[in-house]
Amino acid sequence: MENIIKYSFLLDIYGNLLTKKQLDIMKYYFEDNLSLSEIAKNENTSRQAVFDMIKRGEKILNKYEDNLSLFSIHLENKKIIDKIFENLEKIETDENIITIEEIKKLIKILGR
Amino acid sequence: MENIIKYSFLLDIYGNLLTKKQLDIMKYYFEDNLSLSEIAKNENTSRQAVFDMIKRGEKILNKYEDNLSLFSIHLENKKIIDKIFENLEKIETDENIITIEEIKKLIKILGR
Repeated sequence: MENIIKYSFLLDIYGNLLTKKQLDIMKYYFEDNLSLSEIAKNENTSRQAVFDMIKRGEKILNKYEDNLSLFSIHLENKKIIDKIFENLEKIETDENIITIEEIKKLIKILGR
Repeated sequence: MENIIKYSFLLDIYGNLLTKKQLDIMKYYFEDNLSLSEIAKNENTSRQAVFDMIKRGEKILNKYEDNLSLFSIHLENKKIIDKIFENLEKIETDENIITIEEIKKLIKILGR
């Protein structure tokens, strides 16, 4: 399950760097949760060929993550945003609430 | 000049995805501002070979930027951070200044 979340995210950021075919098969597997056999049938190929393509795709995605760390930065940023929101709530008053809401909106854009 | 800033930044984020030799030569050119002839002399190769390597490197960096947009996101984020800081200054009081400073510190980490 952890793997599925990880690779869904990696596909989301680095997916464009894969070939169209690689991306499709990885999405069937990690996003649509199709089985290897189901993908093989749809793609008119063998279960082993699908398995190999997913393993090769994982390797490529991990290479990008090792070099660019966008997934781990995203996870860190989520924690930092939580801390900022806690701090904003501490200083919120009837007078500044509109500005605080505006700040929260901008921070959510930063954390996207 | 604009190009130099752009490629210095692209090298900073995507540089690990180049070969060691490519990265070295691009850094000599875009960060240390050595001329093609100077780099050729140091690397014991021709001016043309250095030129070709830089052009190929630019192409690779642009391919990553086209797919991942980290440079343009960075530029957008800088504007958003400026807006957040303006808003924080609007609501700063003697009572909340310590928390506001803490928030600013966290936001700078988000924008790194």
